[in-house]
Amino acid sequence: MGPGPSDVYPQVLAAQARPTVGHLDPLFIGMMDELKKLLQYAFQTENPMTIAVSAPGSAGMETCFVNLVEPGEKVIVCRNGVFGERMRQNVERCGGVAVCVDNAWGEPVSPEQLELVLQQHPDARFVAFVHAETSTGALSDAKTLCALARQHDCISIVDAVTSLGGVELRVDEWGIDAIYSGSQKCLSCVPGLSPVSFSERAVAKIKQRKSPVQSWFLDQSLVMGYWSGQGKRSYHHTAPVNSLYALHEALRLLAAEGLEQAWQRHRAMHQLLADGLTKLGLRFVVAQPYRLPQLNHVYIPQGVDDAALRSTLLEHYNLELGAGLGEMAGKTWRIGLMGYGARRENIALCLQALSLHLS
Amino acid sequence: MGPGPSDVYPQVLAAQARPTVGHLDPLFIGMMDELKKLLQYAFQTENPMTIAVSAPGSAGMETCFVNLVEPGEKVIVCRNGVFGERMRQNVERCGGVAVCVDNAWGEPVSPEQLELVLQQHPDARFVAFVHAETSTGALSDAKTLCALARQHDCISIVDAVTSLGGVELRVDEWGIDAIYSGSQKCLSCVPGLSPVSFSERAVAKIKQRKSPVQSWFLDQSLVMGYWSGQGKRSYHHTAPVNSLYALHEALRLLAAEGLEQAWQRHRAMHQLLADGLTKLGLRFVVAQPYRLPQLNHVYIPQGVDDAALRSTLLEHYNLELGAGLGEMAGKTWRIGLMGYGARRENIALCLQALSLHLS
Repeated sequence: MGPGPSDVYPQVLAAQARPTVGHLDPLFIGMMDELKKLLQYAFQTENPMTIAVSAPGSAGMETCFVNLVEPGEKVIVCRNGVFGERMRQNVERCGGVAVCVDNAWGEPVSPEQLELVLQQHPDARFVAFVHAETSTGALSDAKTLCALARQHDCISIVDAVTSLGGVELRVDEWGIDAIYSGSQKCLSCVPGLSPVSFSERAVAKIKQRKSPVQSWFLDQSLVMGYWSGQGKRSYHHTAPVNSLYALHEALRLLAAEGLEQAWQRHRAMHQLLADGLTKLGLRFVVAQPYRLPQLNHVYIPQGVDDAALRSTLLEHYNLELGAGLGEMAGKTWRIGLMGYGARRENIALCLQALSLHLS
Repeated sequence: MGPGPSDVYPQVLAAQARPTVGHLDPLFIGMMDELKKLLQYAFQTENPMTIAVSAPGSAGMETCFVNLVEPGEKVIVCRNGVFGERMRQNVERCGGVAVCVDNAWGEPVSPEQLELVLQQHPDARFVAFVHAETSTGALSDAKTLCALARQHDCISIVDAVTSLGGVELRVDEWGIDAIYSGSQKCLSCVPGLSPVSFSERAVAKIKQRKSPVQSWFLDQSLVMGYWSGQGKRSYHHTAPVNSLYALHEALRLLAAEGLEQAWQRHRAMHQLLADGLTKLGLRFVVAQPYRLPQLNHVYIPQGVDDAALRSTLLEHYNLELGAGLGEMAGKTWRIGLMGYGARRENIALCLQALSLHLS
């Protein structure tokens, strides 16, 4: 019950252990076509450029920035936790100009502040923000933020690492232009892959580039030669075959449950955990309307030794809680309820173990 | 028996399917320390900066170039196949100046030509070449090429994707400065990870950089905060936990067999296959002294339908042969004998199936 990697579905671990076939094998290519459709369902998009980057979520983030942002272009970066700051670093490393909209850790991104900054920077080309901040447990209003981006003729870049599969997310309906996620949060797949999707507008922007993408490995114009599914697939890099088996199975399980049902389960399990934590006297860092069901960020009660208690839980209960990050280190815990981890048996174990060791 | 991904050891598939633990879990960190030692053994190096990049071999290549090469710096790139050309593209994407030494496909890199070019370009900072060209089956003399690089005060960057574990490779003894490999060739691990190692000289060059590394994800100064093993590990990105289980097991199997014994087994199995192929009238593309035991590149006999025969072998014998690449497409096959794939039973199946369908 940490902030991810989450508990992986047993079926996903089993799928991953199937014999490795060639990345150009017809059977594998058939699976890749299914995988793409399943990713489109999870993202609620019909974007043809919807794939899994062959590396973790941080590489998915970099994929979005290096393909879209050209040197000198201005990007409004909303920062309300660790990952917004990482976005800023990505912008600078590809030669972009980052303008930051800052909100306190634990708060959502403020649409009012974003709008003000957009008015002050009419030359901005992009708006980047984190939908679900794993470092703080705050959910931002992606629909409103993306609408603002469109109004100001900006392309939106959305971090959905922790949101995909856990809370409502509708790429096409909300007008999200570029989005990346991770396999190891609410999809409960093994870590190491990053689903991404680019809208028609985003693809048009990539096609208009004046300079080559600085990364060969992440250059989507090359990667799409392998993923396109039209005619012959051209070799780009060796696909992580077994991890893709796992992602296929995790997405199949999500589709079998139903996306809205999965969102609802995360909400219901969160309510159960939140009620129990509140009874134990724990307070949440994030105000109620912005709380992520899948990442419960709570203050450690006074007098409790953070590291010692987390060690006890891990050693004696096989239970992981996440530590606070940055300024929150030693002051908070982050309790994950992600994908396969969002189950009553985990909540019961967590509440019982905490009640025994907090008293 | 394609050019990779190779057949994965059953034990490696089983290791990979173990339950996912957190990437900061003490058990996992203990495994990472072992993994590092096993990688050092496989590379025959004591370089402290020896890790596995969380992405395929192409990302390992990019890791070497983006960390080492700064804009304007000159890199001598030896091209004798697909991957030398990819190196050139990497140099240009990080703003370096590539000077190419070209040899025909199927030939090794010529030390004489390299020396001439080094004399013509005294301002060169790097020499980059592919040890074992997967696209052609040619082995280059890494020891001599790296010695030449040192004589001309250049840092060597070596592609060992297909050589690691399959042919003699001694990073420290040969003075290799930066090297990358892949998990899915002679290590017979699942695809998706890239072992890399940097010498003291390479690390010193990285530390003297004037400009930041253009990739956040591949920036080794950040990644080493997680892999260093000294004191507290700092979070960089979520490690691909299950793939690392697999790599640990594959390297453990290599160490159990013994590195020199593994090289010897690849040579012996190659001899067996080569004798059989020759009896069937097949000719090798690469001259005998430069042939890779793990990648047997042969001409398709006249009158044989390349695609149809490879389909038959795949469908009826569960046997993959690799197609020729580039100019060789339709003219050659690449028959892999890598890691767990380099076994008598595979060779018997391959020779028997070919003898039935070539006649």
